[in-house]
Amino acid sequence: MLEMISSKGIKTCTKEELVTLCEEIRTVICDTVTQRGGHLASNLGAVESTVALFYVFDFPKDKIVFDVGHQCYAYKLLSGRYDRFSTLRQKGGISGFPKRTESEFDVYDTGHAGTSISAALGLAKARDLQEEDGVVIAYIGDGSFNNGLVYEALSSLKILKTNILIILNDNGMSISPTVGGMYDILSGLKAKEKAESIRLLENFGLQYMGVKDGNDVEEMIEALTEAKAKLAQGSVLLHIETKKGKGYEFSEEHPTNTHGIPPIGEVKRKEYSEVLGETLCTLAEGNSKIVVVSAAMKEALGLETFFAKYPERAFDVGICEENASVLCASMAAGGIKPYYAIYSTFLQRAFDEIVHDVCAQDLPVTFCIDRAGITGPDGETHQGVFDLSYLSLIPNLAIASPKDTEELQKLLQFSEQYPHPLAIRYPRAGSVIFPTDDTPITLGSWEYLHQENSKLTILACGERCLLLAMDILRNLKKEGLAFDVVNARFMKPLDKNLLQNLKSEYIVTMEDNVEIGGFGSFVTSALLAMNCTCKIKCFAYKDAFIPQGNVEDLQREYGVDQEEIQRYIKRVLQ
Amino acid sequence: MLEMISSKGIKTCTKEELVTLCEEIRTVICDTVTQRGGHLASNLGAVESTVALFYVFDFPKDKIVFDVGHQCYAYKLLSGRYDRFSTLRQKGGISGFPKRTESEFDVYDTGHAGTSISAALGLAKARDLQEEDGVVIAYIGDGSFNNGLVYEALSSLKILKTNILIILNDNGMSISPTVGGMYDILSGLKAKEKAESIRLLENFGLQYMGVKDGNDVEEMIEALTEAKAKLAQGSVLLHIETKKGKGYEFSEEHPTNTHGIPPIGEVKRKEYSEVLGETLCTLAEGNSKIVVVSAAMKEALGLETFFAKYPERAFDVGICEENASVLCASMAAGGIKPYYAIYSTFLQRAFDEIVHDVCAQDLPVTFCIDRAGITGPDGETHQGVFDLSYLSLIPNLAIASPKDTEELQKLLQFSEQYPHPLAIRYPRAGSVIFPTDDTPITLGSWEYLHQENSKLTILACGERCLLLAMDILRNLKKEGLAFDVVNARFMKPLDKNLLQNLKSEYIVTMEDNVEIGGFGSFVTSALLAMNCTCKIKCFAYKDAFIPQGNVEDLQREYGVDQEEIQRYIKRVLQ
Repeated sequence: MLEMISSKGIKTCTKEELVTLCEEIRTVICDTVTQRGGHLASNLGAVESTVALFYVFDFPKDKIVFDVGHQCYAYKLLSGRYDRFSTLRQKGGISGFPKRTESEFDVYDTGHAGTSISAALGLAKARDLQEEDGVVIAYIGDGSFNNGLVYEALSSLKILKTNILIILNDNGMSISPTVGGMYDILSGLKAKEKAESIRLLENFGLQYMGVKDGNDVEEMIEALTEAKAKLAQGSVLLHIETKKGKGYEFSEEHPTNTHGIPPIGEVKRKEYSEVLGETLCTLAEGNSKIVVVSAAMKEALGLETFFAKYPERAFDVGICEENASVLCASMAAGGIKPYYAIYSTFLQRAFDEIVHDVCAQDLPVTFCIDRAGITGPDGETHQGVFDLSYLSLIPNLAIASPKDTEELQKLLQFSEQYPHPLAIRYPRAGSVIFPTDDTPITLGSWEYLHQENSKLTILACGERCLLLAMDILRNLKKEGLAFDVVNARFMKPLDKNLLQNLKSEYIVTMEDNVEIGGFGSFVTSALLAMNCTCKIKCFAYKDAFIPQGNVEDLQREYGVDQEEIQRYIKRVLQ
Repeated sequence: MLEMISSKGIKTCTKEELVTLCEEIRTVICDTVTQRGGHLASNLGAVESTVALFYVFDFPKDKIVFDVGHQCYAYKLLSGRYDRFSTLRQKGGISGFPKRTESEFDVYDTGHAGTSISAALGLAKARDLQEEDGVVIAYIGDGSFNNGLVYEALSSLKILKTNILIILNDNGMSISPTVGGMYDILSGLKAKEKAESIRLLENFGLQYMGVKDGNDVEEMIEALTEAKAKLAQGSVLLHIETKKGKGYEFSEEHPTNTHGIPPIGEVKRKEYSEVLGETLCTLAEGNSKIVVVSAAMKEALGLETFFAKYPERAFDVGICEENASVLCASMAAGGIKPYYAIYSTFLQRAFDEIVHDVCAQDLPVTFCIDRAGITGPDGETHQGVFDLSYLSLIPNLAIASPKDTEELQKLLQFSEQYPHPLAIRYPRAGSVIFPTDDTPITLGSWEYLHQENSKLTILACGERCLLLAMDILRNLKKEGLAFDVVNARFMKPLDKNLLQNLKSEYIVTMEDNVEIGGFGSFVTSALLAMNCTCKIKCFAYKDAFIPQGNVEDLQREYGVDQEEIQRYIKRVLQ
């Protein structure tokens, strides 16, 4: 049935057919995600409400913005993308998130949390100004509802004088179980404080409606129909209760583990996050000042054990990256030693707080930046390729990247006594352990992984680039060529001493970050300031948003291409 | 009395003495601010509550975080800084904001809005973890209360399980009159919906208390004493109503105009903001798609007339920089042409939304970035010296800086048809009009302000740097030396054509931004990629937070020093 149905066709389905359709959608999602990876639980929870949305509304004339966007699979399947759905998250295939470039049904791209209500308001205002019609809907989970942007958007509802429908999909879980005061207010809507909670929403200019079972397609259709009518009187918040992972037994029981899952069969290497968690536990044992802060991601960041072992020193503040950052700054100002673990792409949300709260006050907060560099199948909104650039420009902040998981441990040991802001970036999986000496790490110190004072030196940061560099070295050695390889483990400050003593005529830099404002440009400026006359060549990602694909392909395609680097080096050395 | 009193001494004052003390403080603030510039109205409104705070609490054992920090003058006067207060906002003098480096009474630096509750929570948690005692207070205005960070902080109150006192100083004004849904909820506290509004706050874990006249020192002392006792049962929100500008007649009547004021007698040049407002009005007349968005700063940004003339196309969303950014992105996605005017330093708050919402979707939003470059007396938290760096790294975003106010007009005309994201940065005051030709501006085009194909070319961006460059040219011409000067009006994309045709052996770049990741480093990378063998020298600000002082002094001291540049050029040319 799903194979044949058009987005308009849903409107003529019987209730029984709709139930069948939901089952089919659920099956396709399960099958595709177990094969391709992706968000399972959130998408399963949204099936019935999405079908009901197509029944009641006319997309794409009516418009919908999915918050975060990790619950849009059913919407994609019903808006002409069933045929291509098996390409989910593959290079050139269907995105796991809404993409305007993919379909006219996707009107606003998302990926980070909390943008949907603002975005719906903007689309609605654009509609009003151009005297168009159609309903604009924000579809948002209770986890995102904690985010400050949501509050800013709600505050501007009356200012903008426009009407939107907010569907609050409440499954009591974000990536971690939802926490926080706003969630309690939402819970109030389900319980005895209902009147007060509703009054709160009315103050923002919202009409409140509740649906007890958001996984009941019939109930959803009724509610959406009523909500649609109510929009004439103003914006509506439709609060629906759903079950994350609905219909997939394992997922229903383990919604945290199945939020984002890799394809079945994929080899799981030792992850940096595990080492982070273990090391922080060890450090915390001997240092009562150490605390850990997370923004709704503790499991994915490897912090479960820390949270279990030190509940009084571990804080998950929900999807509130900015608040987490200020909490770290202020705890540090109060004499505590905070570690803030977060994905590279989400740390962007706290940029101002890193500048204004942490670094301007020169406070000893350590940022543990996971998923740095290209992350792959989640695409543009999830690549961690900007952090080196947006962090390098901030005074007082040191930035490091370990060559392997063992060096992450050493960097964390270094961080314990380091009295200033520090950022440590690393990719997801560790795949190799490089040889190492036992010299403890000092600020800004680099090390040679291979040294023979040749006429070319590679300065590479992070495991991925060092792996490429050593691989090229192995290849070229077979041809009798060789060069030096430096583990530039600090991107800031640079190892000025090592730079000054470089004898090579040619310097190559490699990084898992965009070229503009990145490590290579920083090295270039430093070498020029030293009046170095060597020839510098930087390999980094070109100035573009990097779409989904696998990590190696994307690295190659966007500017860190092993073959190209090898060709360059060979030409120079011959 | 103020001259003699210690922070502890206040506790033994009679109520009459306290009233006298308040009067004296008010006089000192008025006198100093009219002489030195600074925030007048906000500080006048906070006098009585600050005196009462010293009466009830023991600073610095008890700690206070001032949100934004522009209401801390009375606090400074009462915490041992009366003697030095006449140096307010001068180089090396008393800061207009809290500064940990200035006094042990200042426990947390602020400058941007919305951080105080998070910061108080972090300080309180640090206190708990170290088994110390003392009360932690967040002092926040109703304008800041609109900011998303406040909501994130309130949401984390229960998670952190600690107690703070929040003083909500409600004067109904932020920089512009306060707007938005949360403000209506606060207003509810003063009116008939009191019970519901209180319940809302209780849901966040707060005990509510109200004070009708926050400018009555006796009433304030009673309320603070009661609040202090209540802290044993949990956090308290003390909602006080004050009069912004209290006691200074003109200021009471014109709180918007006296939020931040320049010293009396300072010559007011034509400002870029005026030109922005005029030009947008003109463009909007012929283009119904143009809208303007501001985050609580419309007057300072020159947008009053636009708001008056096009109320249906002008949106002030309060201090919600992120929401403003997403609204722009989504209105653009809906076919509208938004202009988002904001100060450089505050735009940092929207970094993720610029990346994720505007640029990843390649939407035609124009950012009008005022107060770019060094801004002077407000110090570290208000310098606009990072934007070139944090914007350059973002794909799809073009960045320009006009050479003078006339060129701002031309850039805005250019922006109207430009279908991608664009940032235009400019300082506060315009001080010169450069000669110009009538060529319309095209993307990435630079122009020669002086050309004689000499062996040195200056590439300078923005009025300030071009002024310095032309000044040096005039000086050196007298000595028979000359060089070329280029108005690098686009920082991104660069004028590759002009760069490729540069005949000069020496290239000098000048910018009103930090060196790391800035214009100079971008030019350097581009020239190296072109295999240019010229010698490049970049003048930009060194890697540091730039404190308060006057613009010219700071420019010189932090790396854009006319004499040094002139010396360098002279040495090269001779």
